Amino acid sequence: MTSITKAACIGGGVIGGAWAARFLLGGIDVAMYDPHPDAQRIVGEVIANAERAYAMLTMAPLPSKGQLTFCATLEEAVDGADWIQESVPERLDLKRGVLTQIDAAAHPEALIGSSTSGIMPTELQRDMKHPERMFVAHPYNPVYLLPLAELVGGERTSKETLELAKARLAPIGMKGVILKKEIEAFVGDRLLEAVWREGLWLIHDDICDTETLDDVIRYSFGMRWAQMGLFETYRIAGGEAGMRHFLAQFGPCLSWPWTKLTDVVDLDDALVDKIAGQSDAQSGARGIRDLERIRDENLVGIMQALKAGDGGKGWGAGKILAEFEQHLWAKGGGAKAAPDIAAPLRLVDTRVSAAWVDYNGHMTEHRYLQVFGDTSDALLRLIGVDFAYVEAGHSYYTVETHIRHLGEAKLGQSLYATLQILSCDEKRIRFFSTIHDAATGKALATAEQLMLHVDSKAGKSVSAPADVLSRLTPIAQAHAELPVPDGAGRSVGQR
Amino acid sequence: MTSITKAACIGGGVIGGAWAARFLLGGIDVAMYDPHPDAQRIVGEVIANAERAYAMLTMAPLPSKGQLTFCATLEEAVDGADWIQESVPERLDLKRGVLTQIDAAAHPEALIGSSTSGIMPTELQRDMKHPERMFVAHPYNPVYLLPLAELVGGERTSKETLELAKARLAPIGMKGVILKKEIEAFVGDRLLEAVWREGLWLIHDDICDTETLDDVIRYSFGMRWAQMGLFETYRIAGGEAGMRHFLAQFGPCLSWPWTKLTDVVDLDDALVDKIAGQSDAQSGARGIRDLERIRDENLVGIMQALKAGDGGKGWGAGKILAEFEQHLWAKGGGAKAAPDIAAPLRLVDTRVSAAWVDYNGHMTEHRYLQVFGDTSDALLRLIGVDFAYVEAGHSYYTVETHIRHLGEAKLGQSLYATLQILSCDEKRIRFFSTIHDAATGKALATAEQLMLHVDSKAGKSVSAPADVLSRLTPIAQAHAELPVPDGAGRSVGQR
Repeated sequence: MTSITKAACIGGGVIGGAWAARFLLGGIDVAMYDPHPDAQRIVGEVIANAERAYAMLTMAPLPSKGQLTFCATLEEAVDGADWIQESVPERLDLKRGVLTQIDAAAHPEALIGSSTSGIMPTELQRDMKHPERMFVAHPYNPVYLLPLAELVGGERTSKETLELAKARLAPIGMKGVILKKEIEAFVGDRLLEAVWREGLWLIHDDICDTETLDDVIRYSFGMRWAQMGLFETYRIAGGEAGMRHFLAQFGPCLSWPWTKLTDVVDLDDALVDKIAGQSDAQSGARGIRDLERIRDENLVGIMQALKAGDGGKGWGAGKILAEFEQHLWAKGGGAKAAPDIAAPLRLVDTRVSAAWVDYNGHMTEHRYLQVFGDTSDALLRLIGVDFAYVEAGHSYYTVETHIRHLGEAKLGQSLYATLQILSCDEKRIRFFSTIHDAATGKALATAEQLMLHVDSKAGKSVSAPADVLSRLTPIAQAHAELPVPDGAGRSVGQR
Repeated sequence: MTSITKAACIGGGVIGGAWAARFLLGGIDVAMYDPHPDAQRIVGEVIANAERAYAMLTMAPLPSKGQLTFCATLEEAVDGADWIQESVPERLDLKRGVLTQIDAAAHPEALIGSSTSGIMPTELQRDMKHPERMFVAHPYNPVYLLPLAELVGGERTSKETLELAKARLAPIGMKGVILKKEIEAFVGDRLLEAVWREGLWLIHDDICDTETLDDVIRYSFGMRWAQMGLFETYRIAGGEAGMRHFLAQFGPCLSWPWTKLTDVVDLDDALVDKIAGQSDAQSGARGIRDLERIRDENLVGIMQALKAGDGGKGWGAGKILAEFEQHLWAKGGGAKAAPDIAAPLRLVDTRVSAAWVDYNGHMTEHRYLQVFGDTSDALLRLIGVDFAYVEAGHSYYTVETHIRHLGEAKLGQSLYATLQILSCDEKRIRFFSTIHDAATGKALATAEQLMLHVDSKAGKSVSAPADVLSRLTPIAQAHAELPVPDGAGRSVGQR
């Protein structure tokens, strides 16, 4: 049993709230404990951001959202939870006390993760009775999109705990990365801290301002690091001669005066004023909500781009996303009611994402066909033509499509798509899909399509098997009673 | 005059070759001087990679490729060049000598950039007679894709030089970022050096292996940094309270033991062996050429995703790409011959990129429509409906499309698309496009489409102006002599 059935989030700030969003959208019930008066508002805002991002991130069938409960006591929250995530402020005494309280109240088999950015788990677990199931699970914001959790055990953490934690995170689209040894700030925050110190010196010494420094990162190695890390990038830089050559070439720089490494900058009022002022000049025209939205849309776009990487197999975070989606397809989404077959089937609900629009903010032409493709995919899953079926060597291929544009979809607009079967036989399905504006129901585009059942290896059409036809036929029979949609059966330009 | 007419590349390794590729694909002639016996091979490989990447990167009309000449002497290479880029090995005496030789031979107005990773321009320009036009232009690999060049002046560099250099890089899709002061290793390499030192310690101390360290980067802050840098990311982390709040919260960590900042690791044989071994285990299953290909495809995907950012206006490197494309559209591409209108017009040449394929490596359905859309866009530009025309308030909108799939396109396959006009009047164009396999000419898909000329603000169809019709009509008349293509005028499923 590697999936979480109930999660408890102790501490509901930005990090605790984003953990809650990750669990909830993964279909897991969450009990939250945070006595802060603003906790419900903050968590609600984070979850809204996460839902918006997921609507753009994937067409895979998300499970029914888990239920969120705010609890009056920590004990109530951890009751029955098999994953407890502590995200209280970064003070050793406070965290130690909370973890000891969790330890006393939780089921002995429950896993207990801490979101600490830097405190060693050995320090945190000191007073626990069952420290073997306690570890650091250090996430990165936004937790609901970035897949990483650094998993770090203390002296008394069992090895099985880290492996089990990693296995439990995978079904919610997260990548648990296990460190071999504990160290303050783990791996990611140590690297970030190194950059941060050096960056502060560059601002302090007026080498550049904050915007220039950010531009240097995002126009260069930031894009490299979104897909490969430090060592794999440098391996390429070493060329055919590889890593050893790179080390020989760049090793000597270590002793050159290339960083301020022996000094710590004094973050005095003057430097704080300088940084805050430059940051206002750089980013102040946009509010934080706006920047968060842009960040999340960009992350979604980057992850989708990486999902297409390595010849469609997925690369880096895109590969994690692909695995997450395969898991979702296999599960088949939430316990949705079987669709009403006496009407056109409502098969897709989506939203026009930033990647789908042209510079005028209108949905580009080929994205309509993408939504129609998602709609026919949903029909296929309904009749048993799923990922496993396709992997086994048969599928339906679209051979013809006739699209009519009746209106325009704009950035952020909610859409849904319906599908009516026009005719079918052993090999063919002809059907008519409509993309609607979700607010008014108005048709924005229609597509008449013809699909052929094929043996994909032989590359020729063959009859579909009886079990697929037995699911298809009742729908086709019910739809035969419906009026033929306006626009079906026409050629281009025909009235 | 802010564009480069002839560039000289002095030094033709990976960096010099990639500069040459950037210039050549930007339509600029390049004279290369490098006495190394492998220079021509290395440069040729880099240019091939760059051409492959550009074919996936943009549908904008690239200019006719510049001409590459290998010269026997440095003097011959710099003759007539208005941008000279020095990319010889990283030794002060060598670079100083080469720059002095360039200085003596070059036109006094020519700009002279050095690709040095870390040497201060004041040091480099010491012996030059015209040091005012010499500066550091430090790029990041792959130079043909990553837009950044750090522009750094020395004590004797004029301010106008840096601004002029920045202006000259923009038309080839590069972002020149001017630093306020010189410092060893500039900004990017100082930040990278800080991470590199800390990373070496983490491997040395067995906290993790190289693959884990890379995973930590690419599953977390790498994706943040591809779009925003350090300060803008932290501004968001500070929430509504902003940068000042963030500094107050995280300032104290500076004095915590979060990095090994006071020590420099000894890169002895044991550590080199450890890193090289771990890197082999992590990446050794793929050759460098394979990793380069994956890196470039991912960068293309990330840049295209960012181009859709901020509601389609473009963000970060995606905004640079959008600006580059607008520049290319405005220039209208290379001096191509006017197409032969006595046959279907060949309007698009492209290649199936990684982002276009499904997990089986086949081009996904909606990407066919994307290519058909690019084809009709090319027709529109041919008849004068370009970016400026659309901005001014009129356009042609596609209202109907009938696609037939006749074959499959696979990852990396070269394609071209042809278009035949079937009929037209003042408001409408009905046409028939075909996507062909470039190797065999075989038709893989066809599309019959109907476009309406519209007043985009009023949202209604209106007659096209006379100058547009005067360009359209002769093509339509010529195409009326051609046979009606097989498949035109049919409804879905009609034989």
